[in-house]
Formats: sequence, structure tokens, C-alpha cells
Amino acid sequence: MPPHPDLPEPAHPDVDSMLTRKFGREIANYFSGSPINRFSFLRADHGFISKALVHPSTSFLLFNNLAPLAKDPTALAYAKYEDVQGLIGGNPFEKTEEELIKQYNSTITLPVVLFLGLDERKKEGFEHGDYKGAPYFAVDVTPRGTVEKEATAVIEEMTKRGPQFIEGRMHMTLNAPEAAIYAQARALLDWNARNPFCAGCGQPTLSVHAGTKRVCPPTDFASLPAATQGDATTVEVKPNERAACVTRTGISNLSFPRTDPTVIMAVVSHDMKRFLLGRQKRWPPHWYSTLAGFCEPGESVEEAVRREVWEESGVHVGRVLIHSTQPWPYPANLMIGAIGQAIPDGEKIHLEHDPELEDAKWFDFDEVREGLRAGTSGLGEPAPEGYVEGNLRLPPPTAIANQLLRAVVSGFLESGELSKI
Amino acid sequence: MPPHPDLPEPAHPDVDSMLTRKFGREIANYFSGSPINRFSFLRADHGFISKALVHPSTSFLLFNNLAPLAKDPTALAYAKYEDVQGLIGGNPFEKTEEELIKQYNSTITLPVVLFLGLDERKKEGFEHGDYKGAPYFAVDVTPRGTVEKEATAVIEEMTKRGPQFIEGRMHMTLNAPEAAIYAQARALLDWNARNPFCAGCGQPTLSVHAGTKRVCPPTDFASLPAATQGDATTVEVKPNERAACVTRTGISNLSFPRTDPTVIMAVVSHDMKRFLLGRQKRWPPHWYSTLAGFCEPGESVEEAVRREVWEESGVHVGRVLIHSTQPWPYPANLMIGAIGQAIPDGEKIHLEHDPELEDAKWFDFDEVREGLRAGTSGLGEPAPEGYVEGNLRLPPPTAIANQLLRAVVSGFLESGELSKI
Repeated sequence: MPPHPDLPEPAHPDVDSMLTRKFGREIANYFSGSPINRFSFLRADHGFISKALVHPSTSFLLFNNLAPLAKDPTALAYAKYEDVQGLIGGNPFEKTEEELIKQYNSTITLPVVLFLGLDERKKEGFEHGDYKGAPYFAVDVTPRGTVEKEATAVIEEMTKRGPQFIEGRMHMTLNAPEAAIYAQARALLDWNARNPFCAGCGQPTLSVHAGTKRVCPPTDFASLPAATQGDATTVEVKPNERAACVTRTGISNLSFPRTDPTVIMAVVSHDMKRFLLGRQKRWPPHWYSTLAGFCEPGESVEEAVRREVWEESGVHVGRVLIHSTQPWPYPANLMIGAIGQAIPDGEKIHLEHDPELEDAKWFDFDEVREGLRAGTSGLGEPAPEGYVEGNLRLPPPTAIANQLLRAVVSGFLESGELSKI
Repeated sequence: MPPHPDLPEPAHPDVDSMLTRKFGREIANYFSGSPINRFSFLRADHGFISKALVHPSTSFLLFNNLAPLAKDPTALAYAKYEDVQGLIGGNPFEKTEEELIKQYNSTITLPVVLFLGLDERKKEGFEHGDYKGAPYFAVDVTPRGTVEKEATAVIEEMTKRGPQFIEGRMHMTLNAPEAAIYAQARALLDWNARNPFCAGCGQPTLSVHAGTKRVCPPTDFASLPAATQGDATTVEVKPNERAACVTRTGISNLSFPRTDPTVIMAVVSHDMKRFLLGRQKRWPPHWYSTLAGFCEPGESVEEAVRREVWEESGVHVGRVLIHSTQPWPYPANLMIGAIGQAIPDGEKIHLEHDPELEDAKWFDFDEVREGLRAGTSGLGEPAPEGYVEGNLRLPPPTAIANQLLRAVVSGFLESGELSKI
């Protein structure tokens, strides 16, 4: 099966490899397949980041309250360094992280400036040693704290030129490469915004590593005049010492972005003729999807699939196979898509363990095939043309649920080869 | 390939299913394969939990500073309700969560009492409607705050009887079913211990949902006499109002346990004849393993595999296939095991992007076969008998790295069938 046109290409186009021949072409789900190389190891290199920030080839994606600036629902809009310079305080990466931590003042708002990576397809762009490409950053322009006025000015200027900050889940309409860029930026800006305090000690934290780490500084200049660095004529002002914090000794996961693994699974009957699908009350009539849920601590993906299916539907799953994954930036999920096969005596549906679903039902492969052919659309959208009322409705190809069902009915399990549905 | 004796059985023994025939038997990695059904939907049902807590068939796993009480390095030891009653304040689940939140007093230490689930193999145990089994709980007995004395008393009494709290990573010696129970308990107690404050507002939080959720209460009786509920003769004491917090309106992931998805991958050369392995400086000579790293926000597992391999070794990976997963409770990782195939022109090793590894090298399948046969042991352990000095050393079968290599050299990719190595 060739990937759906809405889906991104895998980052490395598949060559005719053994894995591809045996297991089919890799499905790069929507929100993955980013054209940007993150260069994660350069985020703490302030020399690199400060040069990339001010380069003429650099693009800035702006978010106001997590709504991205966009030309229209299919394409993002970008700002240049000059557009955000006033808001971000010149070049915040000129100082080392050590200096930023020493000068920490919790009463001053520092907008998060997030390094996304380089688009290496654009070779004419920025150069740093062997690395070449056009840099991408994201900036949180939400008006707040001590930069409210400057943030509002950026918003007014950018929207005056045409682009708008688009609220809600406009993303499912974005072209695939930009959807992946948006997913990375949104997830990380949201993580910064919802974690202003240290969960270990309760004190405010500071964003470092170009937006990908939050540290708990040992001192704070709050309510004191800012220290004057390297000026011998100025009397030195000592910052307030803060309470001890465990995250300052050794590496703590609290300092790093959170991603919540979830499982989503196409469950097939033991005889491989039917799918188990479920629906929530608020969904339109005849709309069903695959079951899903959060993976818990101390649990494998395979166990989480079996637990969630049993808790929500009463069905017992045996063998579980992982198919593909999809980032889901609302706010920070990683959807791990699996195929599970029910055990022969475990196919009876029972909705009363965890009454999350309004209904769960077994559907013949043919019903699902017809649903994939003529019944898919976004949740808020009307059924597509050609849909026959009463038939099964299913999520669109941008949802991994659709891709899992499509893989099974296309023969992924039988042949190890994906063929066009 | 039959599972290694150290590995747990899959939760549902595989029947001769289509998925098993095509893709081989499921590998249940160490730390997975728990015999306990979590019944996650009953955690907020205080009637159920309070009955389970005091039942004679109930077992309590105790942790002191995250070290579990154990008979010896291969088996856990359990306490009964009577042993912990004094520490946990009788039955903390007699009150509803609503009452507990209303009575919240941040100056009183409430030891975390974690419901793990029911072992349904023990039918003679506890009954609740249709559900039957022996309940399992874990209790954090670390001496701290207002229960220091009571916690110390529990520790002294239990260790006087023989069992000890075993520090460090004794777990890799635990029998497989108990390793899975330990992983669940350790991960969740650790999450509670390292998140005493709300990352959204900085105020202290309260553990609810039998240890699996932390809420940010709107009021606090700190420094006030405790409220007397339902006693009309007592003057009512009003608690202090706390600052507003975003986690109180709607569902926030900050209230729920964190699990960090990581990728770990057996990378094969394009011609399927060699493996890419790497080593860290602190490892013993000749010891190598598969590459690994954290999955980032807005990134699929497949993308994370390609990024991490390129950043650490310079090798470009094409097709990625996910094989199996392993919970890793240090502190909260989910290891997602994959097999990736290098692209033809992308096999040159370059260690200078992210200099995390001391070395990365291509090894012939035969070298890896010999390493799996006679060179595996725990990291701190000596090489096994029969190991020839200078040959490749590899992680033990309890590590998913070992299982990934074993699957490939056993023909998993060629036949879709695992055969004994």
C-alpha cells in the first residue's frame, strides 16, 4: 500500500530493503515525517544557537496561547528575527546557560525561544562546521508578565500582514511536513507553559537548552536590582538563596519534556474475520474507532493493549504486534499503534468493567473495508460524498486508527506485504 | 525461540494464532508479564479499595527509600495489614476522595498506599461482585515527616523477622513474575516521591486514586486545628484558601504518573550481515550493546530511532520495525525495542556528532551469535564460564537489547518465525 497522500514520507525513503520486502513499506503517520533534523546535541551550545537565531535564512513559528500563526488552515506562516527581536530581548543565547542560571530573576518573564532544528534540504542556508541548513525556531508570543506589551506588539504587527493565529485543531488540515513541525513546536511550548514550577520543590523554574529543559536555579534576584556582571565599579548585589532541590544534584526526568505513551489497537477476532471497534457517546451516529488508552508505569505496550481492551470491552487479547507510531501533540502523547488478536474463548463483549465506551462491537472485514472506502472524515466533519447512511463511519487517514485497519484489510498480516486497498 | 527461563510468560499464553504463526511467539520481556490484573477502573472506588486493604488474603510490598523488602535477592517479602495499620492510619480509604481533598493538611504526612491489583490465580481470596483474587498493595515506609516514628517501627519489626530492604538494582535477580510486580510498585512510589509539588502552581499535592493520581487541593488546614466533620457541637474551622491552579479545571497530565518512552534498537547493515553496536566508557572491555535514547515530543518512535542512531553513530537508518517493549522502572522508562536497517550509503560510523559513545562498531552476525552463546552477563558481573577473552560481551537475556539481537540472528526477519538460537 503506498502511503496516503495526506501522510508524510518516511524521513529516509525506503530502498528495496529486506525489512521492506518482508514487512512492507513503513507507514509514516501524520505528525511524524518531519523535514527538520533536530540536532539535539547542539541545544546547549549557545555559540551555535545564537548564530542560528540571527541568520537571514532562519524562520520563526509563533504561537499565541498554543495557536500557531498560519497563512490559512493548510500552511503555517513564519516570522523573521527582526519581527521577534524586541520581544525576546535581543539575543538570549549570547549568554551561557551557567550565566543565565546565575542571573535568574523569577519576576522577569523570558518568552520561550525553542530551537526546532535545521532543514537540511536548504543547503544555501546557515553553516556551522559540517552542518548546513535553514534554522527553525518557535517562540511563545502569548502576552504575559513583564513582556505583555512587547508580545502584543508582535501579534498585532504579524496579523496586520495577513496571517492569523488559528485556534483549535486546525492542524489536521496542515500539509504533512508542516504538521510535523507544528507537532514538535506545540508539544514543547505547551510543556514549558504548563510546568512553570518545580514538582520536586515548588519553586519557579527557568527554561534552558533552547527550550527543551527546565532547571531549578539555586538563587533568585527577585525583588533585587539585577546584578551587574564584570563591572568593577558597581557594588555587587547578591541574589537570594533558594531552598535546596533534589533536581539540582544529578539528572532528574523532571527537568526534561514529558511525553505520555498511549496504546491504540486494531483488535482482530481469533478467526481473523472481524474487528473489535468501539464508540464514545459524543461521536456522530455509526462512527466507530479502534480502542485506545494510556500506557501505565511498569507496564509493557503489549500488556497495556491487553489491559485496556479487557477493561473497556471485556475481550481477551493474546498475541500483540506493534505496527507504527504517531506523535499526538494534545498535549504530549505518543500513540503506539498495535494489532492484537483475540483468544478463541475471549471474544464476548462486556462494557461494564470500565464504562468508558458507549458501545463496542465486532465488525466484518467487509464492513470495515467499505467504511475505509466511503465512510472516513474528521470527527467534526460531515460524512463524505458516496457514504450510505447507516454504514460504518471511521476516522480519516491522518489518524493512526485508520492506518491500522487499512494495514490489516490490505493483507499486512498474511503476506508481510502491504498492497493497495 | 522459546522464551528464556528468566523471562515472564506472556499474560495470555499464546494459542496457535495467525499472528503467532506469522510473526513468532510474543517476547514478554523482563519487568513485564505481571500476574496482577490492575483493575485500574476501581482505584477511585473507595468502598472496593477499603475492603481490599483489610482482607486477610492481602499482601503489602514495602519500600524504604525505594528499596523493596525481600527474603533474598530472588524473592520479595510481604507484610500483612496488621503490620502497616499503625503507619497508614487505620484505613485511609474509608473516606471518599472528595472528603480527603476537603480535609487536606499539607503539614500531615500521609504515606502513599498504592493499590497494585488482584492476583486472579488465587480464587480463594477476596471477592467483589464478579471480581475475585488476592489483593496486592505497596506502601512507602520511608521514615519522614509526621510518621517518622511509625515508619521506623514498621521497618524494625519487619527486618527483625528476617527480610531486608535490598538497595540498588537487586531486581535483575528477582524471579520474573515478582520483577513485574516490583517494577509497577517502584515506578509509582517513585513518581509520588519525586512529585510532592504541583508543577503548574508550586503548591504541595495530595496522592489519591490509591496512589495513581496527585491532585492540587483548593484548601489547606496547615497550621490550623483539623476540621471536625459532622460534629455539630464543635466550632467549624475553615481551611486556608490556596492560590488558583490550572490542574483543578479539567484533566491535566500533571496529575497522572509520568512514563518516559525510550527507543532501543538493533541496527542491521543493509546486506543483513552485521549489527551496529556501541559502548560507553565505563563498561568493561569488549562489552557492547544496542544503541538507545529518549523519544522526544512530537516525534514518532521510528523517527527517534533514526535520529538517535545518526546522532550517536553517524549511521543512516531506513526501515524501522518495532519488535517488543520493556518497562524499565529507573525511574519511569518504557523501552520500545526496534530493529532498523541501515541504508546502503549510510553505514559509515562517525562518533563526533553527539559524543555520547566511546565506540560504535559493526559486528558480523557470527560474532554476535557467539556473544549471545558465551558472553552474556549483568554489567557488574564477571564474564560467564566458557567466555574467551577478547570476544564480544553482551547484556543478559533480561535486557531487551539481548532479545532484539537474539530475534534477528534466530531468523525473525527472514521467516517471521522465531527458532531456538
